[in-house]
Formats: sequence, structure tokens, C-alpha cells
Amino acid sequence: MHRSVHNNETLDRTFFALSDPTRRGILERLGGGPATIGELAEPFGLTLNGVKKHVGILEEVDLVITAKVGRARECRLGPAQLEAATGWIDDYRRTWERRLDRFGAYVEKIR
Amino acid sequence: MHRSVHNNETLDRTFFALSDPTRRGILERLGGGPATIGELAEPFGLTLNGVKKHVGILEEVDLVITAKVGRARECRLGPAQLEAATGWIDDYRRTWERRLDRFGAYVEKIR
Repeated sequence: MHRSVHNNETLDRTFFALSDPTRRGILERLGGGPATIGELAEPFGLTLNGVKKHVGILEEVDLVITAKVGRARECRLGPAQLEAATGWIDDYRRTWERRLDRFGAYVEKIR
Repeated sequence: MHRSVHNNETLDRTFFALSDPTRRGILERLGGGPATIGELAEPFGLTLNGVKKHVGILEEVDLVITAKVGRARECRLGPAQLEAATGWIDDYRRTWERRLDRFGAYVEKIR
């Protein structure tokens, strides 16, 4: 596995951002189109400050971008493509499969 | 996106388990073969209790399994294949690309 990857702070924060069902819900909602902080608050039963906090965590890792539109703040999906996250998981799966192959070979041998 | 997925507690806990560089490091180390709690403590500069805490979080989501071997507790990669995590990310990327296509079409139109 890539040694460099496991000290990657963006990776930490990306996985953390995805670990909350409300934050994943906000991303799913924004997949349908932009929304203001106020429009996100109601369906999730959150206060404006609650939404702002979640959006801030998503914004930090480029999963969301926001812009002032009149008196509202509009949120939309950001440029993050989650390459680091999928890259780490893919590496992990390859290691896992290699271990499984080795275990299979061992079982064959002791049969 | 799958509505059912975003209330998935295992998904929350899996992303949370992966959000820590020490926990990812432990998984990378176990990719090379099983290790006891004591063997994991030294390279990561952790106490036995520190390792136990991280291993417990990984064990909860089947990323690690542990077994008592003599007086030690041996850790190895668990059966979790991270399907839910990669499934969510794949769905997200598809939505993201769809939005990008729509934006491209819009740019074409206003040209």
C-alpha cells in the first residue's frame, strides 16, 4: 500500500465527512441540484446553524462549494472526486484478495 | 442514490473507522499478515490500550477479527469487503458526472 497515503489529512477528513448520515444526505440532495442553507435545513430537521456546521465539514474537503446569492448562501456539489478515498479502498481490497489467495494456497497444501 | 443507504449505521461506522491514519495503518500492517496487539503497539507508538481501542473500532465493522492465541490476542484482516462504502462512493460519482453533463449542455446552449 502507498505509505504516503496513510498520513494524508485530506483522506482522514474525507472519510470523516462521509461518516455522518446527514452529511451523506446533504450530498445526495445536492446531487439533484443546488440548494440554500435554508432549503437544506427543513427536510433534515436541522437548524440553520446545524446545516452550516455540516456544510462547513463538507466544504473543507471540496465535497461542497458555497456562494452568497443575495441574502442566501447557495450550496452545490464541489470538485472533490473522492479519488484518494477510492484509491485507498482499492489498495486495501487488492491486499485483502492477495491474503485470501495465499490462504487458499495454504489450504490446498495441507489437504 | 439509494435512499436506504444513507441511514446505514454500518456505513457510518465504516467511514468513521477509515477516518483515522492509525487505523488505516493497522489495516495496512495486517495486510502483510496477522499481528498481536503487542506487535501493533510498538511501530505505531501506542500503548496496549490505545491499540485495543483502535482494533475494537475496526472489529466492530468486520475490518479486523481477533482471536486469543495463548496469552496474546492475534489480529488479522476481517471479512469486510467495503462494498457498502464503495457502493455509496460509486453512486455519488455517477450523480456528480450527471450534474457535470447537464452543466456542459447548459454551457453549449448559452454559447
